[in-house]
Amino acid sequence: MSWKVEEQSFDREKIAMNGNKFMIGNGAIGYRGTLEEFTKDQLTASTLAGLYDKVGEQWREPINAPNGVYTRLTCDGQPLSVLDTEFDRHAQALDIAQASFHRNTVFRTSGGNRIEISSERFVSMEQLNLIAMKYEFSVAQACEIVLDTGIDGDVWDINGPHLENKSVWSEDGIVGLTATTHELRVEVTVAESVTWIGGLSRPEESRQPGSAIRQFKLRCEPGVTYGFVKYVLICYGETEGQSSSATALSIAKAALQLTYETHLQEHLVHWARKWEASDVLIEGDDEAQFALRYSLYQLHIIAPTQSERVSIPARGLSGQVYKGAVFWDTEMFMLPFFLYTQPEVARNLVMYRVHTLDGARRKAAEYGYRGAFYAWESQDTGDDACTLFNITDVFTNRPMRTYFRDKQVHISADAAFGIWQYYAFTGDESVLLEGGAEVILECARFFYSYAYYKHDKQRFEVLDVTGPDEYHERVNNNAFTNALVNKTLDIALQTLALLEERHPAFREALIAKLDYGQDAGNLRHMLLQLYMPQPDPVTSVIEQFDGYGQLEDVELKQLKSRMLNKNEYLGGGSGIATTTRILKQADVVLMLHLFKQQYSQKVKRANWEYYEPRTEHGSSLSACIYALVASDIGNPDWAYRYFLRTATIDLTGDSKQYVGTLYIGGTHPAANGGAWMAAILGFAGIDAGEGVIRLQPALPDQWKSIQFGIVYQGERYRIAVSKSEIVVSADGGNKTAQSFQSGSESVSLAPGASHSWIYDSAKRGALHA
Amino acid sequence: MSWKVEEQSFDREKIAMNGNKFMIGNGAIGYRGTLEEFTKDQLTASTLAGLYDKVGEQWREPINAPNGVYTRLTCDGQPLSVLDTEFDRHAQALDIAQASFHRNTVFRTSGGNRIEISSERFVSMEQLNLIAMKYEFSVAQACEIVLDTGIDGDVWDINGPHLENKSVWSEDGIVGLTATTHELRVEVTVAESVTWIGGLSRPEESRQPGSAIRQFKLRCEPGVTYGFVKYVLICYGETEGQSSSATALSIAKAALQLTYETHLQEHLVHWARKWEASDVLIEGDDEAQFALRYSLYQLHIIAPTQSERVSIPARGLSGQVYKGAVFWDTEMFMLPFFLYTQPEVARNLVMYRVHTLDGARRKAAEYGYRGAFYAWESQDTGDDACTLFNITDVFTNRPMRTYFRDKQVHISADAAFGIWQYYAFTGDESVLLEGGAEVILECARFFYSYAYYKHDKQRFEVLDVTGPDEYHERVNNNAFTNALVNKTLDIALQTLALLEERHPAFREALIAKLDYGQDAGNLRHMLLQLYMPQPDPVTSVIEQFDGYGQLEDVELKQLKSRMLNKNEYLGGGSGIATTTRILKQADVVLMLHLFKQQYSQKVKRANWEYYEPRTEHGSSLSACIYALVASDIGNPDWAYRYFLRTATIDLTGDSKQYVGTLYIGGTHPAANGGAWMAAILGFAGIDAGEGVIRLQPALPDQWKSIQFGIVYQGERYRIAVSKSEIVVSADGGNKTAQSFQSGSESVSLAPGASHSWIYDSAKRGALHA
Repeated sequence: MSWKVEEQSFDREKIAMNGNKFMIGNGAIGYRGTLEEFTKDQLTASTLAGLYDKVGEQWREPINAPNGVYTRLTCDGQPLSVLDTEFDRHAQALDIAQASFHRNTVFRTSGGNRIEISSERFVSMEQLNLIAMKYEFSVAQACEIVLDTGIDGDVWDINGPHLENKSVWSEDGIVGLTATTHELRVEVTVAESVTWIGGLSRPEESRQPGSAIRQFKLRCEPGVTYGFVKYVLICYGETEGQSSSATALSIAKAALQLTYETHLQEHLVHWARKWEASDVLIEGDDEAQFALRYSLYQLHIIAPTQSERVSIPARGLSGQVYKGAVFWDTEMFMLPFFLYTQPEVARNLVMYRVHTLDGARRKAAEYGYRGAFYAWESQDTGDDACTLFNITDVFTNRPMRTYFRDKQVHISADAAFGIWQYYAFTGDESVLLEGGAEVILECARFFYSYAYYKHDKQRFEVLDVTGPDEYHERVNNNAFTNALVNKTLDIALQTLALLEERHPAFREALIAKLDYGQDAGNLRHMLLQLYMPQPDPVTSVIEQFDGYGQLEDVELKQLKSRMLNKNEYLGGGSGIATTTRILKQADVVLMLHLFKQQYSQKVKRANWEYYEPRTEHGSSLSACIYALVASDIGNPDWAYRYFLRTATIDLTGDSKQYVGTLYIGGTHPAANGGAWMAAILGFAGIDAGEGVIRLQPALPDQWKSIQFGIVYQGERYRIAVSKSEIVVSADGGNKTAQSFQSGSESVSLAPGASHSWIYDSAKRGALHA
Repeated sequence: MSWKVEEQSFDREKIAMNGNKFMIGNGAIGYRGTLEEFTKDQLTASTLAGLYDKVGEQWREPINAPNGVYTRLTCDGQPLSVLDTEFDRHAQALDIAQASFHRNTVFRTSGGNRIEISSERFVSMEQLNLIAMKYEFSVAQACEIVLDTGIDGDVWDINGPHLENKSVWSEDGIVGLTATTHELRVEVTVAESVTWIGGLSRPEESRQPGSAIRQFKLRCEPGVTYGFVKYVLICYGETEGQSSSATALSIAKAALQLTYETHLQEHLVHWARKWEASDVLIEGDDEAQFALRYSLYQLHIIAPTQSERVSIPARGLSGQVYKGAVFWDTEMFMLPFFLYTQPEVARNLVMYRVHTLDGARRKAAEYGYRGAFYAWESQDTGDDACTLFNITDVFTNRPMRTYFRDKQVHISADAAFGIWQYYAFTGDESVLLEGGAEVILECARFFYSYAYYKHDKQRFEVLDVTGPDEYHERVNNNAFTNALVNKTLDIALQTLALLEERHPAFREALIAKLDYGQDAGNLRHMLLQLYMPQPDPVTSVIEQFDGYGQLEDVELKQLKSRMLNKNEYLGGGSGIATTTRILKQADVVLMLHLFKQQYSQKVKRANWEYYEPRTEHGSSLSACIYALVASDIGNPDWAYRYFLRTATIDLTGDSKQYVGTLYIGGTHPAANGGAWMAAILGFAGIDAGEGVIRLQPALPDQWKSIQFGIVYQGERYRIAVSKSEIVVSADGGNKTAQSFQSGSESVSLAPGASHSWIYDSAKRGALHA
């Protein structure tokens, strides 16, 4: 089985897409899969996690650091670039096992010379500031080569430029470019070192004053390999009292103490651990196997392994799209992967919500509510980066008022739910004590303050919200939202009970701090009387929101035939989906996945069948949910189509690139997380919670087996599911026994023990030991 | 002073406008001000009050009866029409004192002959089925005249054709055209008689089989006046067991017993009474004098004098625009005129809501509410004629979802308020006992069922409504709507108290019928805790709805400069006013007018000044309200501009003709009623209620005096207001004394007595006896 994404040719049309597809990163820096000679026009980017900037009234977005990878060869006066030079061969590859990018090109000059370039690079998982690169070349005929390499300060920006007062410095052979951001005046430095390898002699070096690009001239002979190793260091802000330039210089010097190979080895140790923790083996389906591994790769390169102050943006670190903002995607679509495989990363992700609680409090207050209303688009401070006019109308070119920011209140429930899931899954109370409990209580208080009571019907209702289906804004009693509000109230009361039992003094202090004396009673009252839309007694369909069933029941195909412009937005005040039952993405069906134990197979099936043909899948968050619930109701072959769509999204580039006039391309971490969920929670049918791990597999036809490891409550298990058998093995290092259940048979698995269940794959929900 | 609207020429561009301007009618039939030779292309229409039809999925609208006035001369083979024949002279006039239309044209034929035509017509106020017409002509040179006259069945329809199975009959010289409507199969008959007058001999008559148009041939000599009198009878449905054709035939025969002059005299008796009851004399301002009289004329020709099953449509009887539907316009903008001058008509108008209560109940139930939710666009049954897609987007040509029907809940308050006002003003309890109390209770119940309670703030709120400013749909706590809901609750409780005191058995039966046992308590609870937006402590401005103050504060001129299409709709989901503070029409300011005693001058002034520059006056209902409140705050000169705009709207034709792609031309009864309000309630400053009639005048500069009569509690008074004096005279036929108050002086005026107050016109609100 290959672990490589490869491209054997160069296609100008694929530059943007391959920038995403061949991306490398380490959770702190994302480096797009572009070639060394590329510039901002080809969307080169070194996107930094957690550093944002705003220019004028433009959207606040992450900064792209100056491009330290930039390198270009000139052969006898002819610059070489795949963009405008003939070549005999070009190939590029991404090794997802090692998280390294590889390139090989044989250029043919106008003078008939052939220049072969090979390069590789990785963003170190050990030294998070480091991009390491090796660049080698050889010539077919003797010639003069000029090599430009350095830091290209003219970077791709959507709403920039963000860096000002650029200054270039040089010390001990290290060249640096230091600049400051526009809004918060944060100093950013990119430094680089160049070490020549191979060749006949050290080339002649020069640099224009004020330029961060060095020029090397050398006379090249055939049969010799020339090249250099380059370390690019990216630092910003102060580190232990040192400026970014001082830090960059000192870590550049330290990096130079180690060879490229040593840096690579350190990097690979981390990656080996990642794959050991998370790899999934699929027997019988090479396409699915690769796509799933690729999805996990994409998650690994953007996961914050060493910071709880950043989370994962909706487009990962693939650029500035969606303002580099963190959405509900993290909790709902990525968190399960990390929870089941690397709970330490999951902890960082949920702690991000603790660190942004004050922003959520400010947002609630701004709208006149109490508690915490999390940002729909969250950046460093937790203040909402989402604008009120988030889309441009293609017909009038006017900004369109959308209610993502104001009305997607479920975001606070998602945040609380994520924290609680982490606690419930790991048993790690520290996250509650370090702020998680406070988040949960504040979110519940927000919902109490948001909800209304209907005397006539003696119930609380949640009005004027936007659910996952963003095409229907400002609806009442969205079933999904109400279910999550209900869950938040329940979690808050459980949190209070847990603190009372285990940390009474902490609880007392927290109640006092939050002035929460009356609130617990309010939450209990609301929980008892909160309206939860129920399945229709005849059809079992749960109405997505009040009045959904009165909307026009048009077929998706027919709706699309009404489009007048391929980029027109289907929702909002005058979108053509708004007045119909066509939904953007899984909404009720997502609720049925999240609360799968609370709904009968009949209800899940009825709703899947009802909503599936009405779903446009206008969001990359949709397909995986339909895959999950299709597996749950025993239709893995229905699920398979959606699984593949989710798992291949960044390989095929087959996703929406524009909404209105807004570019939304980039990687799709939520879909990547969804691919893992569809495989493990869907096909393998794992559901861990409330002390037991349930197993209810339903493999697609072509899959012979699936094997993977999970962590639950800090203990490790290997699980292998074939068409007729489930085998679970508890790690020998585990400390306690764990209950597993499949069908009617529960087993308590002691450390080192294993157990197998025989099941009838055709008879979902009727499993036998 | 002239009582005539005149036009001394013919302008093709003004055909549609003059059709409105020269309209005649009697409340049952409206006949547009078109010429006899006109056909549907010139929008001829005999619009019938209360008869509606729907074809397919098109909008339901009133039917236009076949045109019995149709008449055309042909001179020596040349048909004569202002549309394509040369003429030496053309004049047309509307006599508003007599409600008659007059025409005089001198045609010049291609052969050099001159044919003079004079005609007049009126829609009888005595015999409501009758249009009477006199048509005379003379020739300059001997010639052969062919006269076509009869019933033109090919009529103007917006969403027709509505009449099917047309059959033509003839009996005793009366020709009839009978047809049936499409939806309800109602039989409609137009019959006509022709009686020759003048001339030398009876002309030769012929008629093609199946045609309802007769042809008369005659040899005409100069110096002789030829002519005929025509009675057109329009009947529909069954009358005392008789079909419409039988009824039409019998009343045609009866009409023929009387001469044209006798019919006219009977008609004039009614009109003399109308003017006696309602005329307003303005000294010093001929333009205002005429415009105001013309406004009253427009109201008189459409007022239902003899039916409580119809009310006044938004475009009167000027055609099918706005579906011939009754809006809140009636209660809020027309009712005061009738209340103060002809309470018997006011009674019909409010009883219309009693007869359409079941439709309002159906609408409430359809939306899941209890009680009565009146139709935003009400026709014969009270079911809502308003469509969910009421406007077409000019950019995409798509139907636009609007929330007029769903969310303008204040309509139920308007209906209840109208009934209560009628009762309070006349003391006529019968309207309460004959269904009015039931309407009020059901409307209050609707609001209880509509409202939500906010525990956090311990108050009821009225969410998701559209107030008068339709550019801002689906807002929360619209101050106007909340005030009217509050009033409705109050009225309902007052109604219950009144019934308890005076009609306990009736009350008991009503409570039982409506199962209203719990409701009174609910209403009381809600009335105590209903949120009423208050003036800002600093600015005194009352926020139009929650969050209005956060909207973009753009200048009206700037907003209009953003328009890309002159007919684009400014509101709705993506209108350019929607996201700004620009309002369509008086909203908060209307509330300050309706509840003028409850707000200080300071608050009224602050809000007038705040909202006035932000109001687009995109509705003809807006200007009069700004006039009223400007008078109230002592700025009659600010008011005067708005008064003139209101009073001249149908004379100048200066109003919006299109919203999106929808034609909205026609007459403007609400503005006509608004003109009366601006004059009497505004400048003269009359405010009758709670047993006292207050007088607080503020005349515009150029007005020397205003004089008029009013009726209150069945007693009549004449009021004369000059710049420094108010004189009130109680009619000698009155039965009881009535309290009047101006400034600090109250006077009880016995029958036949009069009183005068001296006031300082410069010092509003500081009056002296």
